[in-house]
Amino acid sequence: MAMKIGLAQINPTVGDYAGNVVKILEFIGRAKEAGAELVIFPELSLVGYPPKDLLLKPNFIDQNLEALDTVVRKMPGGITAMVGCIQRNDLPRGRSLHNSMAVVGEGRIISIHHKSLLPNYDVFDEQRYFEPGPMVAVARVGGRKIGLSICEDLWTIQNVVGRVLYHHDPIAQLAQAGAEIFVNASASPFYIGKSHVRSQLLSEHAKRYQLPLVYVNQVGGNDELIFGGASCVYGPDGTILARCKSFEEDLLVVNLLNGPGEGRIEPLPQGIESMYRALVTGLRDYVEKCGFRNGVVIGLSGGVDSTLVAALAVDALGKDKVHGVAMPSEFNASSSLTDARDLAGNLGIDFQVIPIDPLRTTFDETLAGVFTGRKADVAEENIQARIRGTLLMALSNKFGYLLLSTGNKSEISMGYCTLYGDMAGGLAVISDVPKTMVYELCDYINRDREVIPRPILTKAPSAELRPNQTDQDSLPPYDILDQILKLYVEEEKWAEYIIGLGFDPEIVKKVIVTVDRNEYKRKQTAIGLKVTSRAFGSGRRVPIAQKFTQRFPLK
Amino acid sequence: MAMKIGLAQINPTVGDYAGNVVKILEFIGRAKEAGAELVIFPELSLVGYPPKDLLLKPNFIDQNLEALDTVVRKMPGGITAMVGCIQRNDLPRGRSLHNSMAVVGEGRIISIHHKSLLPNYDVFDEQRYFEPGPMVAVARVGGRKIGLSICEDLWTIQNVVGRVLYHHDPIAQLAQAGAEIFVNASASPFYIGKSHVRSQLLSEHAKRYQLPLVYVNQVGGNDELIFGGASCVYGPDGTILARCKSFEEDLLVVNLLNGPGEGRIEPLPQGIESMYRALVTGLRDYVEKCGFRNGVVIGLSGGVDSTLVAALAVDALGKDKVHGVAMPSEFNASSSLTDARDLAGNLGIDFQVIPIDPLRTTFDETLAGVFTGRKADVAEENIQARIRGTLLMALSNKFGYLLLSTGNKSEISMGYCTLYGDMAGGLAVISDVPKTMVYELCDYINRDREVIPRPILTKAPSAELRPNQTDQDSLPPYDILDQILKLYVEEEKWAEYIIGLGFDPEIVKKVIVTVDRNEYKRKQTAIGLKVTSRAFGSGRRVPIAQKFTQRFPLK
Repeated sequence: MAMKIGLAQINPTVGDYAGNVVKILEFIGRAKEAGAELVIFPELSLVGYPPKDLLLKPNFIDQNLEALDTVVRKMPGGITAMVGCIQRNDLPRGRSLHNSMAVVGEGRIISIHHKSLLPNYDVFDEQRYFEPGPMVAVARVGGRKIGLSICEDLWTIQNVVGRVLYHHDPIAQLAQAGAEIFVNASASPFYIGKSHVRSQLLSEHAKRYQLPLVYVNQVGGNDELIFGGASCVYGPDGTILARCKSFEEDLLVVNLLNGPGEGRIEPLPQGIESMYRALVTGLRDYVEKCGFRNGVVIGLSGGVDSTLVAALAVDALGKDKVHGVAMPSEFNASSSLTDARDLAGNLGIDFQVIPIDPLRTTFDETLAGVFTGRKADVAEENIQARIRGTLLMALSNKFGYLLLSTGNKSEISMGYCTLYGDMAGGLAVISDVPKTMVYELCDYINRDREVIPRPILTKAPSAELRPNQTDQDSLPPYDILDQILKLYVEEEKWAEYIIGLGFDPEIVKKVIVTVDRNEYKRKQTAIGLKVTSRAFGSGRRVPIAQKFTQRFPLK
Repeated sequence: MAMKIGLAQINPTVGDYAGNVVKILEFIGRAKEAGAELVIFPELSLVGYPPKDLLLKPNFIDQNLEALDTVVRKMPGGITAMVGCIQRNDLPRGRSLHNSMAVVGEGRIISIHHKSLLPNYDVFDEQRYFEPGPMVAVARVGGRKIGLSICEDLWTIQNVVGRVLYHHDPIAQLAQAGAEIFVNASASPFYIGKSHVRSQLLSEHAKRYQLPLVYVNQVGGNDELIFGGASCVYGPDGTILARCKSFEEDLLVVNLLNGPGEGRIEPLPQGIESMYRALVTGLRDYVEKCGFRNGVVIGLSGGVDSTLVAALAVDALGKDKVHGVAMPSEFNASSSLTDARDLAGNLGIDFQVIPIDPLRTTFDETLAGVFTGRKADVAEENIQARIRGTLLMALSNKFGYLLLSTGNKSEISMGYCTLYGDMAGGLAVISDVPKTMVYELCDYINRDREVIPRPILTKAPSAELRPNQTDQDSLPPYDILDQILKLYVEEEKWAEYIIGLGFDPEIVKKVIVTVDRNEYKRKQTAIGLKVTSRAFGSGRRVPIAQKFTQRFPLK
């Protein structure tokens, strides 16, 4: 007997029960029309992942249960759905909630399955809320035994932290319980390179147990996290049979359990293309889910970072929703304004020029008394950045635009940015993109035609806060810097290790000390889109008032 | 046989292994001189609590093990010490670290004991790092069986989240293993009212098992968390035998196991006094541990919030380290400047006046083109706040002062504050203090003499960002607002519940909707000192791009 299964790859909004229910019912209807007898939704699909501390509101849990009830009552007959939801833990001990999948159909809840392995590292805090399910059981659908698991339950072979974190293996238990097919409902956030790791893992599981495996992932952005979709089906021999689109909603119906499956196999974006698509997705969803109907405003310096953010914003929102502002001072090369204007022209966006020298002068005059006898230093440079931040926020406040901040990961790592200045904004679009990848993304955007004017990509990067300044006055060359930052920030390697790879000990020391000293700035950044395995934000929690010093093996 | 035990209540700095070792050796020496045969340090005393993601650095763990080794080698003979440290988990499964106590003496590590219950709620993320100890064992010191546990291990009778979270009870296990005395090493953060809960808990444990109980707590501030100390000893009948000082380092040596113990019983500050002492401690330690030798700068508006922060700063740092700046505009009552000046005079601090109207005018002129045809609104009000933020940060940058921000919990809850304006600063001193308690704290500071000028306490609160503005134009009366905020923000009560208590449904709705809508501002606040059971910051993790709406039972 065949089994037609629908992979319902949806983009829910956290806490939007009304909207999510409508979406789920729509996908159930479409799956039924396509002949599916079972349709599978992502982890916590009723709720949107991650709900975080909204889970502490009793009301939030109640509305989720009511939403589940609505799905059960309103869904058509003749199809079974697996829907991600929250359940209360009825036992007197343990945390009060479960992260669950409800198997529903014919007007009732057929069974409930709780997540067994709860990730509590990086951006994940599931042991803050959820109690693991006390046991693993197969779901029965149309006489078939479905080995239903939730996200992390599957991450037992290969774990992102490089260690077997858990004391049992729910997939092995499901196999032992006679599962004829594995289903995994996920909300697995994107980072560059992860899709490869995940494909391997899914294939290995299928092959190990010689069972088909259906993987359904959430798609879309929720705050810092971006979900890539790419839900898929693997055959018992570990080969891919079907795959949904990446970074957009999709419904894919496959015929399983006899023959090869009839699904399409959508391409899986890799490398810089995947990062580009993730950023566009995260930016679009943050703006839309926060309800910024008037779009975004960006300070265009003529530099490569603000250029990239503007190009991403146009791709995410359309050119009419992107507003560019140049704020030149006497320290800006005249070419900077030209470059910004050319970019705005190429993108077709609104562009305004607001010179800041009168404000600089007035700040100097205002502070002349208290600064008497002091030389100009970083204080004056920061004032310029803060004038710009204040002007951009004024536009944000007046016109209802979301201000996008444009700092990249390299400069945020090094604190080469001004709090309340260029760091101002509601979303830090490229705060997890190293400078060298900023250029790669620009090249990707220019792959067919010159969207980004050449001069922006070829000139030396500069903050232009004092005469003839370039980034390399203060920072190591970006190709070196980014390698050291990847080792130190993303991989937690230590000074000796990094120096042992052949990097200049003085540069390594400078980078590490500078990264550590600037934690206070990162404490106050906007939400930043996560696109690497370790981003600043909720996945990296470093104290500020601390005195840990790495050992540096210098003579 | 008697047993003399030292309670070594120290204030470690996170990651300061050199400094913490010196401190620990000093306390061991003093305890020995006082005749103690055993001296007990707080949880993670070598490391400082909480180390957070520094725990992910292999180097950080190594240095902690080396620091332990140094203590073992350098400590005098004839005394045993229990020192908090990190151990690696040697087993191939589970998280890679343990939160441990090492029992050391006579040049060796006698035994190691791992924490068994790992808090993972509110500000705690211990299941992010630590594996629970596989078993609980008593420590043997001088022929005695010591039932040694670590912090949360003891929180089994009464749990802060109102539920028995855990599946076993290490205290019961220690009692069963023949413990003759309980020892609990803690790093238990302060909030108002907690000392009462904790005293009850300790007393109940002692009485239940009819054993003496020695409790040693960390003292001092580390980022947002403040540790109150008040280490203590309870007798087998549940009565208190000895107590250390609160909010300062202390060494107390008591004679246990025969007779009543000879320790002093220091007073335990309650209510508003405890909050005052916590804030002074948290402010002092943040400034000192971050190394701001030049002290702090505060914008003095003449209002009650900045007044309170200035008074706290003087008590924490001394008047020479506190720099007050008034930044009047045409919207400020002339009495505001007088009040600020009088306050600075009373406190004996540096005081400067920097008028901002020229900057306001220049911003208006600069934006005239883009704002053509638009009425003045919150955009112009925010510009004023951001001018002040920029000026204060200029002083911070030029003179190396830490800028203290002065927003209280009521206004931060309601978003009645300006990002990059009055929210600018490295430490939000009173961000967890509701407005009504701001007044109580001022009254406490004025208990002996008028430090805070009366007019500041009696005038109507105003942001003074437009003519004749008062807070109550935008906010419900503070006594009502603070009650609703406590229910909604601290206790996670829902609309129907709060309205059921008799509050005006329209006000409740306005408060809840406004709190939810302003999450993005709180995302970017400075570190704020936690003094209530639920503070903004790491103990409250709410998504921004979400659409959850409470149900409001309005007609």
